[in-house]
Amino acid sequence: MNVTVRGRTKHHRTVAFDSARNAVLLIEQRLLPHEFKIVATKNFRETAAAIRDMIVRGAGAIGATAAYGLAQGALAFRGRDLKKFSAHIETVYQTLKAARPTAVDPANAMKAVRAGMRAGKTVGEQQSLALAAAEEFANENVRHCEEIGRRGAKLIRNGMNVLTHCNAGWLAFVDIGTATAPMYAAQAQGKKFHVFCSETRPRSQGATLTAWELAQQKISHEVIADSAAGHLMQRGEIDMVIVGSDRTLGRTGEVANKIGTYTKAVLAKRHGIPFYVAIPLSTIDWNLRRGFDIPIEERHESEALGAWGMESSPKSRVRSARSGRRVYVCVANPTSGARNPGFDVTPPDLITGIITPVGIFKPKELWKHRCKLGFDD
Amino acid sequence: MNVTVRGRTKHHRTVAFDSARNAVLLIEQRLLPHEFKIVATKNFRETAAAIRDMIVRGAGAIGATAAYGLAQGALAFRGRDLKKFSAHIETVYQTLKAARPTAVDPANAMKAVRAGMRAGKTVGEQQSLALAAAEEFANENVRHCEEIGRRGAKLIRNGMNVLTHCNAGWLAFVDIGTATAPMYAAQAQGKKFHVFCSETRPRSQGATLTAWELAQQKISHEVIADSAAGHLMQRGEIDMVIVGSDRTLGRTGEVANKIGTYTKAVLAKRHGIPFYVAIPLSTIDWNLRRGFDIPIEERHESEALGAWGMESSPKSRVRSARSGRRVYVCVANPTSGARNPGFDVTPPDLITGIITPVGIFKPKELWKHRCKLGFDD
Repeated sequence: MNVTVRGRTKHHRTVAFDSARNAVLLIEQRLLPHEFKIVATKNFRETAAAIRDMIVRGAGAIGATAAYGLAQGALAFRGRDLKKFSAHIETVYQTLKAARPTAVDPANAMKAVRAGMRAGKTVGEQQSLALAAAEEFANENVRHCEEIGRRGAKLIRNGMNVLTHCNAGWLAFVDIGTATAPMYAAQAQGKKFHVFCSETRPRSQGATLTAWELAQQKISHEVIADSAAGHLMQRGEIDMVIVGSDRTLGRTGEVANKIGTYTKAVLAKRHGIPFYVAIPLSTIDWNLRRGFDIPIEERHESEALGAWGMESSPKSRVRSARSGRRVYVCVANPTSGARNPGFDVTPPDLITGIITPVGIFKPKELWKHRCKLGFDD
Repeated sequence: MNVTVRGRTKHHRTVAFDSARNAVLLIEQRLLPHEFKIVATKNFRETAAAIRDMIVRGAGAIGATAAYGLAQGALAFRGRDLKKFSAHIETVYQTLKAARPTAVDPANAMKAVRAGMRAGKTVGEQQSLALAAAEEFANENVRHCEEIGRRGAKLIRNGMNVLTHCNAGWLAFVDIGTATAPMYAAQAQGKKFHVFCSETRPRSQGATLTAWELAQQKISHEVIADSAAGHLMQRGEIDMVIVGSDRTLGRTGEVANKIGTYTKAVLAKRHGIPFYVAIPLSTIDWNLRRGFDIPIEERHESEALGAWGMESSPKSRVRSARSGRRVYVCVANPTSGARNPGFDVTPPDLITGIITPVGIFKPKELWKHRCKLGFDD
């Protein structure tokens, strides 16, 4: 999507490849929303570190980063010995996989790249095919998001107020995003609408990343505290909710996503407001039979007890935040502890529809449409 | 309640009076939870400033502060001329009332003090009666909270997990608090239970004030992000909710309270978890006929876009927060705006019971019991 830096607007992908320098290009997401910077990783070990240290985050984005990282590692190999080359690829693969061991996307992405390499007879051929496969993986990610946008845009009518939670935007994918895709597509169709970005404590991805994206894209939006959504729904100020998903159970239609998603769904149900989940096919889990069995990561309590931000003045926020220092502040009583679950599970009865690249489905109908949705028995 | 400073535990009221110095003693709440300090206001103008600048906040606490402030102003008068004295009292009253013009408690509290003064024949008598009436106002506030505690403690069983939101604790009253009163009373009865303090963005009173109170009182507790309550309820980890109220409609049973209260009530209903509201009689509004008509204050957007805290390290929070500086950080994208409603309204169908000093009532039965509840036609 577009990013404007010092008055100049340029198109960027979240993850890209510079073949001249054999470098993976990543938006340094830890500096957002206060600073925009592109990082070029010099080798696959730096790429793995970028995944591990969360320079890049989001399911689709780390998948594409790992795919490019594997190609980068392949291209750096010097020699013609296919056996040595294979051993090297295995090292690259393991290094990138270990960067975020619980995520499934990097492994799946690298599987696709290795499959693409197989047709090559020589090291050189395999190297070229690796890059081609990584590019294809990234492009397919973009095409899927475009499809989600095309289908989801129909749901957004002129004058609507749309609520989203956390960041399932283009920063979490290669481009366009999932929950944001219908918004960007509706905007391209000339529709006018307003987006409420739920802050998403404790890491505030809604207030930082989603708000930044929408500001870059010039979509009308406002940040709200997570607690304010209920009140706005009660007053008729929210017409629709669209969120992303970290894992969707293909057998039950349950959706695991950032903590707070379930609450928004319960509120939407009470108010008769449509609640949509936009997902790429890669996040459908066809195996698990109960949402209760999805492991819910308990994160460090310092997140819930404090906040990261730019030291600034509440009254001249824009100017002072730009020149400030990024610091952690302890907000809570420092001697208290915290519970900090990272995700929650929304049951299918609260979900109006699941927007996928191949269609919008009722959550309980995912299993019926499993072939179309890429179920691989 | 008790406060421990450098290993020494001492009982404190939120608001007290030092007659030797003719000073109102206030806990400087803006420094909490990071520093505990008592402020002594030297005259009624300083007392008014303390209310205005939020050194003291919370309905009951600002009521008692205004009551003491009026007595303080009366006692500072030199002379015997009753007419001049009355004019002086009017100035004091107006100054204190103007400190927080939308709040009803200071005006009601000062009305009680002026009524108490009337029996005095001389300036000296009226001065003494003013202080006696202010003391009685504060003591009655404490007795009411004790009654709420006595009645509410029965609802807390051993081993329960109780959720509260914002701060309706002793810092918001003269002592004991309302939502916290049942907890303190249950603790005194030897019951063991755990409290989840919902952070209460954007001003985080749950994470700062309630967590501090419970830590001082040695009640087992943890802070959670506002978004985490739904997940904990879903997993069976919350047995009961108790919150306070800024305004309760006596005719309908609707409860206006800090933004996010409504969301907790909707979630509790879905999970069949009892949802209680603890209130002093002074917050019952017998006039308004629709909760929708309660004006909802829209606060400054900088609150929702950032946070105040002590600059510290996430890993050595306790130590570094104590030696840190209190700063504002801009968390959100600095060019984005925010909506920041301060309160929401919870309808009676979501409320299990309203705990008052004179009994626990179904919200729709307040009107039936209006005489007992102090309805003044």
